[in-house]
Order: sequence, then C-alpha cells, then structure tokens
Amino acid sequence: MSVILVINGPNLNLLGTRQTDIYGDKGLKELNEELSKLAGQLEVSLKFFQSNSEGDIIDYLHKEGPAADGIIINPAAFTHYSYAIRDAISAIETETVEVHISNIFSREEFRHKSVISPVCSGQICGFGFYGYAMALSYFADIFKGK
Amino acid sequence: MSVILVINGPNLNLLGTRQTDIYGDKGLKELNEELSKLAGQLEVSLKFFQSNSEGDIIDYLHKEGPAADGIIINPAAFTHYSYAIRDAISAIETETVEVHISNIFSREEFRHKSVISPVCSGQICGFGFYGYAMALSYFADIFKGK
Amino acid sequence: MSVILVINGPNLNLLGTRQTDIYGDKGLKELNEELSKLAGQLEVSLKFFQSNSEGDIIDYLHKEGPAADGIIINPAAFTHYSYAIRDAISAIETETVEVHISNIFSREEFRHKSVISPVCSGQICGFGFYGYAMALSYFADIFKGK
Amino acid sequence: MSVILVINGPNLNLLGTRQTDIYGDKGLKELNEELSKLAGQLEVSLKFFQSNSEGDIIDYLHKEGPAADGIIINPAAFTHYSYAIRDAISAIETETVEVHISNIFSREEFRHKSVISPVCSGQICGFGFYGYAMALSYFADIFKGK
Amino acid sequence: MSVILVINGPNLNLLGTRQTDIYGDKGLKELNEELSKLAGQLEVSLKFFQSNSEGDIIDYLHKEGPAADGIIINPAAFTHYSYAIRDAISAIETETVEVHISNIFSREEFRHKSVISPVCSGQICGFGFYGYAMALSYFADIFKGK
Amino acid sequence: MSVILVINGPNLNLLGTRQTDIYGDKGLKELNEELSKLAGQLEVSLKFFQSNSEGDIIDYLHKEGPAADGIIINPAAFTHYSYAIRDAISAIETETVEVHISNIFSREEFRHKSVISPVCSGQICGFGFYGYAMALSYFADIFKGK
Amino acid sequence: MSVILVINGPNLNLLGTRQTDIYGDKGLKELNEELSKLAGQLEVSLKFFQSNSEGDIIDYLHKEGPAADGIIINPAAFTHYSYAIRDAISAIETETVEVHISNIFSREEFRHKSVISPVCSGQICGFGFYGYAMALSYFADIFKGK
Amino acid sequence: MSVILVINGPNLNLLGTRQTDIYGDKGLKELNEELSKLAGQLEVSLKFFQSNSEGDIIDYLHKEGPAADGIIINPAAFTHYSYAIRDAISAIETETVEVHISNIFSREEFRHKSVISPVCSGQICGFGFYGYAMALSYFADIFKGK
Amino acid sequence: MSVILVINGPNLNLLGTRQTDIYGDKGLKELNEELSKLAGQLEVSLKFFQSNSEGDIIDYLHKEGPAADGIIINPAAFTHYSYAIRDAISAIETETVEVHISNIFSREEFRHKSVISPVCSGQICGFGFYGYAMALSYFADIFKGK
Amino acid sequence: MSVILVINGPNLNLLGTRQTDIYGDKGLKELNEELSKLAGQLEVSLKFFQSNSEGDIIDYLHKEGPAADGIIINPAAFTHYSYAIRDAISAIETETVEVHISNIFSREEFRHKSVISPVCSGQICGFGFYGYAMALSYFADIFKGK
Amino acid sequence: MSVILVINGPNLNLLGTRQTDIYGDKGLKELNEELSKLAGQLEVSLKFFQSNSEGDIIDYLHKEGPAADGIIINPAAFTHYSYAIRDAISAIETETVEVHISNIFSREEFRHKSVISPVCSGQICGFGFYGYAMALSYFADIFKGK
Amino acid sequence: MSVILVINGPNLNLLGTRQTDIYGDKGLKELNEELSKLAGQLEVSLKFFQSNSEGDIIDYLHKEGPAADGIIINPAAFTHYSYAIRDAISAIETETVEVHISNIFSREEFRHKSVISPVCSGQICGFGFYGYAMALSYFADIFKGK
Repeated sequence: MSVILVINGPNLNLLGTRQTDIYGDKGLKELNEELSKLAGQLEVSLKFFQSNSEGDIIDYLHKEGPAADGIIINPAAFTHYSYAIRDAISAIETETVEVHISNIFSREEFRHKSVISPVCSGQICGFGFYGYAMALSYFADIFKGK
Repeated sequence: MSVILVINGPNLNLLGTRQTDIYGDKGLKELNEELSKLAGQLEVSLKFFQSNSEGDIIDYLHKEGPAADGIIINPAAFTHYSYAIRDAISAIETETVEVHISNIFSREEFRHKSVISPVCSGQICGFGFYGYAMALSYFADIFKGK
Repeated sequence: MSVILVINGPNLNLLGTRQTDIYGDKGLKELNEELSKLAGQLEVSLKFFQSNSEGDIIDYLHKEGPAADGIIINPAAFTHYSYAIRDAISAIETETVEVHISNIFSREEFRHKSVISPVCSGQICGFGFYGYAMALSYFADIFKGK
Repeated sequence: MSVILVINGPNLNLLGTRQTDIYGDKGLKELNEELSKLAGQLEVSLKFFQSNSEGDIIDYLHKEGPAADGIIINPAAFTHYSYAIRDAISAIETETVEVHISNIFSREEFRHKSVISPVCSGQICGFGFYGYAMALSYFADIFKGK
Repeated sequence: MSVILVINGPNLNLLGTRQTDIYGDKGLKELNEELSKLAGQLEVSLKFFQSNSEGDIIDYLHKEGPAADGIIINPAAFTHYSYAIRDAISAIETETVEVHISNIFSREEFRHKSVISPVCSGQICGFGFYGYAMALSYFADIFKGK
Repeated sequence: MSVILVINGPNLNLLGTRQTDIYGDKGLKELNEELSKLAGQLEVSLKFFQSNSEGDIIDYLHKEGPAADGIIINPAAFTHYSYAIRDAISAIETETVEVHISNIFSREEFRHKSVISPVCSGQICGFGFYGYAMALSYFADIFKGK
Repeated sequence: MSVILVINGPNLNLLGTRQTDIYGDKGLKELNEELSKLAGQLEVSLKFFQSNSEGDIIDYLHKEGPAADGIIINPAAFTHYSYAIRDAISAIETETVEVHISNIFSREEFRHKSVISPVCSGQICGFGFYGYAMALSYFADIFKGK
Repeated sequence: MSVILVINGPNLNLLGTRQTDIYGDKGLKELNEELSKLAGQLEVSLKFFQSNSEGDIIDYLHKEGPAADGIIINPAAFTHYSYAIRDAISAIETETVEVHISNIFSREEFRHKSVISPVCSGQICGFGFYGYAMALSYFADIFKGK
Repeated sequence: MSVILVINGPNLNLLGTRQTDIYGDKGLKELNEELSKLAGQLEVSLKFFQSNSEGDIIDYLHKEGPAADGIIINPAAFTHYSYAIRDAISAIETETVEVHISNIFSREEFRHKSVISPVCSGQICGFGFYGYAMALSYFADIFKGK
Repeated sequence: MSVILVINGPNLNLLGTRQTDIYGDKGLKELNEELSKLAGQLEVSLKFFQSNSEGDIIDYLHKEGPAADGIIINPAAFTHYSYAIRDAISAIETETVEVHISNIFSREEFRHKSVISPVCSGQICGFGFYGYAMALSYFADIFKGK
Repeated sequence: MSVILVINGPNLNLLGTRQTDIYGDKGLKELNEELSKLAGQLEVSLKFFQSNSEGDIIDYLHKEGPAADGIIINPAAFTHYSYAIRDAISAIETETVEVHISNIFSREEFRHKSVISPVCSGQICGFGFYGYAMALSYFADIFKGK
Repeated sequence: MSVILVINGPNLNLLGTRQTDIYGDKGLKELNEELSKLAGQLEVSLKFFQSNSEGDIIDYLHKEGPAADGIIINPAAFTHYSYAIRDAISAIETETVEVHISNIFSREEFRHKSVISPVCSGQICGFGFYGYAMALSYFADIFKGK
C-alpha cells in the first residue's frame, strides 16, 4: 500500500483552539482523523507529523521522505523563509504537494511568497481542511494510474 | 441541481496540441468530458466557456456568474494583469476557485503573481487537469454541506 | 451643439446592483439620465458608451473621438494597465477627462497608479456620480469661453 | 449658512505672477474673488487661508477645521511629503477635498504621489482654477441634500 | 510560396493621420502596399491583419499562425503587458519577428520593456516603415536558404 | 535637579478629543499632569513643549536642549521625514528618547520608518501615555546612577 | 498573582561575556535577578526562558503563553525573520511586549525591520537591561488598573 | 551694485559650536564676515538669512528673491525633502547656487539625494566655508561678464 | 560614395570560434566579407573596426564618426554599461544603428537593458549576421532617398 | 595542537546520496575522513558537527566555538537567512571561514546573498570538497605563522 | 611650487565643437589656457591630461597622482560606473576634487549618481568652465594656509 | 607542464604601498614570487599579467586563455561591472577561479556583487595573498587527478 506523509508546520498544533475565524474550529486531531478515513477509502496509508521546529521537520523529511510515495506539507510560517526545508524537499526527490488552510494571497503581503512552491508539484490554498483531502485524492489518483 | 461555471482563458483552446511538455497532451474537449463525467457522479451541473478575449470573459461572468453556485476559472495569462477580470469576480460575488494546470511558481518570474487570487476562495496549481477535478469536488463538498 | 462622449469601462454596467458600499446604489442608467438632464441645462449633447472590452473602447474612441468636443472616461480597471487606451486617447487628440467614482487613492495599492492620467487634462476621483457632473460642467465652461 | 475653508499651500501666493504656463495668469486674489462669487450663488460661506508654512496650515486646520462644513485644500508641494498635514485632516474629521491646478500626473515623478489623498473624500487635478469651483459645487450639492 | 503574416496592434489603424511626428505621415494602407510590392519581388505571400482587440489578435494568431511560415508583429501598446499574446506566439511555434516603428527605448519608461521579445526571434525598432521591410527580407533570406 | 524636556509634535495638542480609538481619551494637559506628578516622585524637573511647526521644535531644541539633562520627544508625523529635527537632535548632543503613543509598526506602511530613531538612545512605542512615563523613569534611573 | 513570561532569544545566553560594548557587561543571570527583585516589588510573578532554538521558543509560547498574563520577549536575531514566532504570538493572544537591549535602528540595515512588532502591543529598544524593567512596570501598571 | 542672498537652512545657526569634526569650528557669524569681506573685494552686496523654518525660508525667497541678482542657498536637511523650497526657487526664477559645507555623498545614504539641485544652476559641496566663497566668486564673474 | 562605419565591440573578434550555439559558426572576417559584398551592390563604402577596448572605440568614433554618413555598432557587453560610448555617439551626431547578433531579451537579465539605444536611431537584435545587413540596407535606403 | 571546528548545516548529511550532479557523489563521512587525513598532515585537530537545526548549530558554536582556534562552516540554506547563526559567530569571536560546495553565484537568485559572510574572514565557494581543504590549509598556514 | 593635475575624461576632447548647448562653445585647449593663466596668478603649477580610456586615466593617476598636491578630475561618463577610477583615487590618497561642466542633477537619471564623489573632498557641478577655476582656487587657498 | 594564468586587475600594481590596512604590506612582486615558489613545488607553470585596462585584460585572456589549463583572476574593481571581461571568460572556456584579497562582503555595498562569479568555477575572498595560493593548489589538485 502506498504511503503518504502528512506534515504540518509551526503553530498548526493549535488548530481549532485559536484564530478560528481564519483556520476554522476543528483541531489537528480531527484533521488527521478525517484524512485517515479518506485514506482508508482510497487504500492509501498515511503517516502524520507536526512540529514547530524547522530542524525536526527536515530530520523527518530525511528519515521518512525517501521511502514515502508522496508528501503533503503545510509548512505554515516556514513557507515564507525556510530555504532549508525547500532544500530538504529537493534532496529527497519524493513528489510533494504544498497545502495551506487559508488563502495566503488575500492575507498579509509577506504570506504571498512561498519559497517552497518551486520545488513542489503544486500548491493548494484557501480550502480549509478540504485542501489536504484534495492533495490526498491527487496522490491516490496518480498511484491508481501507475 | 447546483450549477458551476468552468471558464478557461486565452490559449487554453490549444490544449493538447501544443507545448505538451508543460500542459499535457489532452485537449480542452477531453478536459470538459472528464469534468462532465465527474460532475455527473457528483450531481452537479457544469457550463463551459473558453475565450481569448478578456472582455468576453467579463461579459460571461456578468451574464452567468450571479446565478451560478460556483465558478472554476483558469485565467491563463490574464492571471497576471487583468484587474478587470478581478473586479468582475468581486462584483458578482459568487464563490470562485482559481486553477492552473502547471505550477506557476516554478516558471517565469512574471507567472508568480496572480492579481486574481485575492478575490477567490483559493488557488490550485500544478496538478494538470486534475486541478479542475479538485475544484469541482470542493464545490460538491460544500453544496452537500448546505 | 458641442458633443461630449461619456465612456465607462469594465464592470460599470453593474453599477447600483453590487458592491454598493463602494459604488453607491444607483445604476448606470440613472447616471446617464442624471447627466443627460444636466447636459440639457448646459446645452451640450452627450453620447454614452460602456464596454467590458478594451478593444471596443479603443474602436469607439477612434470612431467617435476625433469629432467630439470632449471625452469623459472612467476606464475602471483598465486605468491601471491599458496602455492601449492611453495611446488611443493620445492619438485622437480630443481633450479628455478621467473620472473615478471612488477615491482610488484610499483603496488597494494597485489602484493608486493610473496609466491614463498623463494623457488627460485632469483627473477627478472620489465624488461618486457627481464626478461625472463636475467633468461635464468643466467642458461646458470651456465651450462657453470659446 | 454652511462654511467651507479654502486653504492654499506654499508658493500659491505667487499665482498669476510666475510660471504662468503651468499655473495660468490669474492671481490668488482673483481666484478667491471668483470663488466668493460662486459661493454667493450657492449660498455657502467661504474662509480663505494661504500659507507657506506647514505648521501654520496645521494650526489653521485645528482652529477652523472642526467647525467648518467642508475643506478645500491645495497643499501644493506639501502634497508629496507632509504627513503632518495628513494627520491634521484625519484628526479634525471634517470632509476634505484635495485640489491641484495642474495635472500632477503629467509632471515630474515626485508629483505623482500624494500623501494627502488617502484621507480626503476625493481629488481633483488639472482643471486650473475651475477645480476649486468643482469642489465648491460638490460641497454645495451635498449640503443641499442634507 | 511561403506565407508571412503581418499583424499590427492597437491604434496602428490611425497611422499617417495622427502623431505624425512620431509615426510618420504614411498610412497603414500605404505600409501594406509597400510591403506587398516588396513581397512580390521576394516571391513571398503576405496576409495583413490589424486589430485594436487583444482577443482578436490571439484568435488570428491561432487561426493563421500555425500554417504560416513567418509572422511579423507590431504589438503596439500590447507590447508592454499582453502576456496573452506572448503565450499565443509561444503556443503556435511559428517564427515571429517583433517590429516597432519608433525607437521604443528613447520614449517613455514604460515603453522600454517588451513582454513579447523573449518569445520572438528578434526585435527591430526605430526605422519607421522600413522596419517591416527588414523583417520581410529576413524571412525571405531564410526561406531561400532552406 | 535634573531637567528633562518633554516635546510633542504636530497634532498631539488634539490628544483626547479626536481619534480616541488610537490615541486614548486623555488630553495633552492630563498627560503633562501625570508626568509632572511622576517627575515629582522621581525628583526630576520637566519642561513641556508642543508645536505643530517643525521650525519651532528645532528652535526649542536649540534653545533648551543643550542645558537639559535629557529629552523625551514624540515627533508625531515628523518622525517619518524631518531630517531637520534629526539633525537638531544630533547637534545638541543631549541624550534623547523617542516615544510614540500607538504601535507605529502595526499601522500604515509609512509609519514604520523613523528618521529620528538612529540619533536617539532608544525608542518606545505602543504603550499610550505610559510610554512617556517609561522614558522619564529611564532618565531618573540614569541620573541616580551618576 | 499575575504571571509574566520573560523570553530571550538566540545568543542572549552569552550576555555579559561578549560584545560588551553593545550589550553591556552584565549577564543573563543578573538580568533575571534584577527583574525578579523588581517583580517582587510590583507583586508580579515571573517565568524565565531562554533558547537558541526557534522551535523551542514556539513550544514554550504554546505551553506557557495562554495561561500567562503578559509576555516580555526579546527575540534577538529571530526578530528579523521568524514569522513562525510571530504566528505563535498571534495564536496565543496574550499581550506581548517586544524588547531589545540595543537601539536596533542605529545598527545594520537588516536590524531595522521587526516581523514581530505588528503582533505586539509595543516595542522598547535601546535602553539596555532597563528596557525589560520598563516592560515589567507596564504590565504591573495594567494589572493594577484591572 | 548686484545683490546676492546668502540663505542658510536649519541647524546652521549652530555652526562652530557643535559637531565641529564635520562642520568645522567657525561660526555662522564668521562665515558671514568672511563672505562680506570677499563681497567687498568683488563689489557685490550681500543679504544674509538663516532660519530653521521651511516656511520662513520660502517667505524670504518670495520677498527678497525676485529683486536679487543671485541666491546662494545651503538648505541643510531641507535639501533632502523640501519640495516646497524647490518650488519657491523655481517660482522666483533668480539664478540659484546650492552649497553644502560637507561632502554629502560620503555621508548617510539619505544625504545623497537633493530635491533642490534640479532647479539650481549648480551644486558645490565638501569645501567647508570655502564653498560659499566659490559661489560668490561665480556670481561676481557672471555679473562682470554682463 | 557614402561611408558607413561597422564597429564591433569586445569579444566579437572571437566570432565563429566559440559559443557557436549563440553566435553562429561564421567568423568576423566572413561577416565583413559578406557586408562588403552587399555594400558593393548597394554602392556604399564600409570601414570596419573591432576592439576590446572601450577607449579605442571612443577614439575611433571621434576620428571617423563625424565624417561618416552612418554608423553600425554592435557594442557587445559595453551595451549594458558604457555611458562613455553613449556620450561619444551623442557627441558626433552621425546617425547610428545598434545591432546585436543574438536576441538580448531572451538571455540573462543584465542583457535586457541597453544604455546605447536611446541615442541610436534604432535597434536590431536576434537575426545573427543578417542584422548587420538589415542596418546596411537601411542606410542605403536613406541615402537613396536623399 | 590547534583545534578547528568543521560545521555543516542542513541537508549536508545527505551528501553523496542525492543531487550528485550539484554536490558530487562522495558522502559526509568521506569528506570528514579526507579532512582528518589532511589535518593529520597539517598537525591540526578537527571536531566535526552536522545538524539540520539552526538552534543546535548555535548551541554548538557557543559550546565549542570560544575554545577553538578556527571554525569552518558551511551553513547550507541557513546561509541566506539565519541572522541568529551570524550573531553567534560574531559573539564567539573565533575566526570563521564560510565554505560552499557549489558556486552559489551561478545558482538561484536567493543563493547569491549570504548573511553570514560579513562576519567571517572570508568565503570559499564552488570547489566541491576541496573548498574545506582550502579553508583547513588556510588555518594551518596562520597557526604556523603565529 | 605646488602641482595640481587637471584630468578630463571621455569625450571632453570634443569640447566646444559639439553639443554646445550643454557644454558651451569653448574647447579643451581654451579651458587649459584659462586655467594656466589663473594658475600663474595663484602661483600653482598645472599638468593637463585627457583620455577616453579608463585604463589610461588610472595609469596617469598612479604615475602622477602620488607626487601631486591636488587633483581636479572631470570623469565625464566614467563618473557613473568606473569603480576602478574610484579605487585609483582612494589608492593614491592625494586630495581630489570632482568637477562637472553641466548640472548633472538636472539631466538624465543615470547622471545623478557619481561613484567617484565618496572618495573626493567635494564636488562642483553646473558652472561650466568656471567650475575648474573654483577647484583651482580652492587648492590655492589650501596651499596658502599650509 | 600545466600552465595557469594569474591575472590581476586595476590598482593591484599598487599592492603593498598603499591602503595596507585592507590589502596588506606585501607588493605584487612578492605575491608573484610566493606563487612562483608554490608553483614550482606543485609542478605547475605560471604566467603573470596585471593591467589597469579592461581592454588589455580581455586581449590577454583571448591571447593566452585558450591554451592555458586554468586561470586565476582578481578583477579588482572590474568585478562589479565588467560584463566584457565576463564575456571573455565565457568565450575562452578555460576553467577560471575568481580571487579577492579582502572580504568583499564586509566592505561597501557595491562590492558585494560580482558580475564575474557566475562564469567562474568558484570564488575565494578574504584570505589575503593566501587566496591565490588556494586557487593554485586547487588547479594542481585537479591536474593531478587527470
């Protein structure tokens, strides 16, 4: 069974408890449960990881990335400056999809630029939790085609 | 039954015949057929429109937009400068999703900036035709929840 | 009797029906009626044109502009990038006044720059429909002085 | 009777005597007389003020602004850098209209940016003395509607 | 016989009647006649097209471009912002030469940048009508060499 | 007894009467009274000055600055462009603290840059009237240490 | 008793041992002792944290921030790029004050911009250790007022 | 006898008493005496003016400028932003020379740009008091040639 | 017989031996022979000059430029920064055409800007050796018309 | 015996296994062995450290840096934004050399700027593993000279 | 007797023969004669040098600069980009004055920036030939004071 | 025996005699002797060249570059603008190493950008004369490996 990593960056552990006008009122646990249910339907296996540490995300990408069939990453604030995570994604060469819960293009100027996008297959933003589901379906669709 | 507009901008009528390394080898007709099939499964109705004319796209948005339940738009090159289309989307106030076939963030500098994104719910790019399917599923998911 | 063109650009056909907090709740038809009434008082003749198409506006400027005694144009979103309309105004050499309903300088950054202004006599913005009346009075005042 | 302040900034006391190709050959006295005549017709009262000193203009705005029904200001060169005048206009909260005799958008680059515009109702430029008359008519039109 | 498209953008239909200090006093008809005569000598066939509409130019490029042996285009004001025409030229893959009547580099700043140049073989500017003849000769020279 | 100047720039004479959501509802007089009370406790003497005129502030700095033991200045809008006040502070060489009532970094872009800061000991912003008290305590603490 | 977190960012553990011309010759331990003494007088309780790791600071903010009554943070070099810490401060919604020991506006260009300031109540810089005391007094003053 | 105005801007009244490493240890009085002596030799009459107020300098330029044969101005900090003084110099149309005591191009970035230079005959900087003498000699040389 | 200078800048002596993918495989000698042949047909006389030294090119322009009837110059890398060559062309006032072998607009960013273009009649780029022939024909066409 | 730290930043643990076209096919272990061998010859002692965590690198610099005689650091992606590592190097005051395996100036734009360079003795880039050897030899040469 | 070098850069050998509206109608020979005469009066010796070659100017600066008592340089177009001449002036450490015949600040944008100014004592521009005389008098005045 | 060119740019002939705080007190002759000695040990042959003329450096690169096995170049000030030297290095296709004596990244802003680096193998800066030795060793190491 294909394996997909679901990686969430800094502050996303607080999902559902704060700034719910921007990020919605469901928590990270619920996100993971929703995705697990969908993964079951799509016959794909998921591994979840969240960290507020750039270094830990890179370590995780190194450790789990090469063997995975796909990566879904929401780098949160690291999106805008972590060239180190960008290089990690380039290095492991597993197809990666970037997801953002909110529409980063209708928020502060600094959120309009992603240093991660150029090394991903694509980017999905603005659809809340459903963005992760989109990415998951995309991978399932690819795996089916192989 | 909910109605979704699928609007494609300039040069997308040439899909499948040219620059197939970037845009794939399937044509606009096939895209529409694939989407129609999916729409049938999702019990949503689609209306297709493609034009190379900014004015025609605005006219279409004015005519069909207000009554529609959702809009999927790939503004192609207009993405980067058509404030007129941006204003049209703002004016009609129907939820709109922006889709790009290629990852615009790994191409030329001028493609990195969308003047359309800030008035859409969200953006999907880099997933080929599947990006439209994602947008369609998103709307179906919302309609279901209503 | 002197003839003045009143040209409105993209999305202004929607006046009065949408985004009424910014543009007011009166429609384009009412604007034209108000202006016609004032034109009658000022003994000036008006010709109205609205289009969402840059090319059609240029065609209209070419066709009606040279014979007209003045032009009032609200280029709407084209204000910010249509060098083609700018060149059309330069080419026909009829005095032109630029009008905006809202104060473009207190809205989004991209609305602060007009590529049309340098080839017009002047600019009026922020006075709602009254801005058109101002422009009309200005022309009537000039014609009177001739 | 409604009261409107007419405030002219630095060097406008020289109107009519110098650089008449840009500013015309009528002096500030004539401008004020023309406006007074119009004000009489419109049943509005005017108070005139001109100064080359930023501080004096602010003092005047503080002293006369709050009680006035409208302000017409041509900040001249202060347009481009006097955040202090901008803050004064914000502070007194009386509706203000910005007027320029010449078309500031067809002159030197530094004249294209007004730091005053965002706190005014609107801006009028390029119509010579007639721009002040436009502003005055605008206020009269508003007062009538009250 | 090889076929070359000669496409002229917005406002070039006014050639010879206005702004003759910049663009000369010969009209578009005379340009086309001169080029036809030269084409006869060079044993090349020409098709002429002029439009003020970006969309119509793209439609024409799609319709006539793929079968043509070469394209000569003067995009006029579209030179500076029409990424849609740029994409159309890329898409049809017929060799294209960009021509400007005036020297765009000695005029306003905004005319110094062409978004079309990077997808053309080359650019010719500043030689009046003769620039079109240069482009035509270039294509004839290539065809001869084949 | 050590003497500290408390200098307030343009529009701060309106404190407490306008824009009270940003600047609070207490006036300049109350500010000065609060500071005087604190100064009494700290055994420091204060001199107050407010002006809307850049030149008067410079004159005051020249006249009172050299003999003073410290300066607390809120340059208000002059913060962002008065290199003349900056030079005055450099010239008199008395230690100076810059205070802002609101957090200038969470307001308009132009307020983010202070041309005064580089010649002050430090900057305090965002704490309302309390910011002045902080500055006063800082000086008192220094004087004590001498 | 109200609780305030005192968080110091990277390299501040070296305080007092190096670059003493910029940061003074007292160490972090002495800073904490001084603050503790002041906190005792003000009847406020402090919790200290220092880390060179962005992730650890975010974790600490998540763990201790929501229950705290106020946060004093000197983000050191993270000031200039850590959008992740910024988002953490936004997320926990506890009032936060930014402190810098040196005057960041009279040092290298890159130190002039804080990405943290816009989500804090205010900023204090340039007063050495005394800046922390100012922030502490500010909170004590607020708590007293509640 | 020809009359030349010698105008010094803000903070130059402090010459000789402060920042003597940059501006030298001679005062404004000595400068004026030196210049008077030279003027006597050159048979030119001088009028001296110094002010820290932008408005006063403009008033002085208006009052004395038109009748003068030449103006020597050191606008000090106003050099970098006073478009009002620039406009005053343009308006009075008397030949003006800009002088700076220090070399403004080897100091802070903001001092490198003069908004005054484009409306002066020329600029002299970096020669201390001698720069004024240069300007004076220049005018004397011109007057001689007339 | 009219005389035209053909001036080639730095590194063009290496034509045909290196980087043949960009510049073609024919050498400078062949270029000159081809042009001489064409000049013979057009009854124009040519003088060739190539140098890697900016100073030598200026000297040559001074020596031969004023007497020549036209100049064809490929300034190569000097195109992008030699204001000295630009000034030389301005000074000698002989009509000059700028030629580039490759399309400078589809290469590195720094090649997009020519400091030479504004003082030339026009620019030709992207047509290989044929660009020189175009320029030569252009001059012959002008001379014929005289 | 002198001690030199060899510190490698994020993703360099993957050396030799991925992106071998850029970074070569030898691993970090081989790099360290090569350097150890060279260090033996040069009679210098090495300590190796690699981490993907900015905080851990700073901690290591604090712990081992002050006692070391020299530091060789390849900050990898941190090169471009880690002002925290920059400050750590400044703080410990041990001479530091920056090394990059690839030529960062011929890669993506963002890699052209190092925030670390200004606080190092020098920079070496583009020589593969040999760059570390160069740095090592440099230190050995210095130590010899002491 | 003190020796001063008078160095003129590219195209200044053409003085008096061309572009006389900008540079006047007197030639370099006359400039040198005028300066020689003045030098005689001032009891200073002059050495003249003009070259269109950057390298030759540097060679001359190296050869004659160190022994000279002062340098007057008009670097002409090299003013704007020759960091090599700048470094030469820094290297020889003889006091240098930069002179321009025209007012470089009222001409094209690129002429507003001098890379030479920061290493000179001062700059004189806009006074025609008289600017050189000013510089010469300045040096004579200094020598006298020694 | 392999041949390496050692090319030094403008002002480096003055090494050891001036600005010794930046460049050290050893002269170019000593540098060459040191390198010759090292070259002898490494069994490599060196050719030295220094010039203050850009054109001469290009000529030398053309003449000696193609036959050489490696080039060590310190372009000095030409580093920052000589696209002509850059093109020469590209053209001759011999591996080239860029060396700077000082750390260009800790000096003036304009020295931070090298237009030469992108066409070299790598860059070494900040190590004084030792930087040349590093480059020489690098080439020797490569030649050995062949």
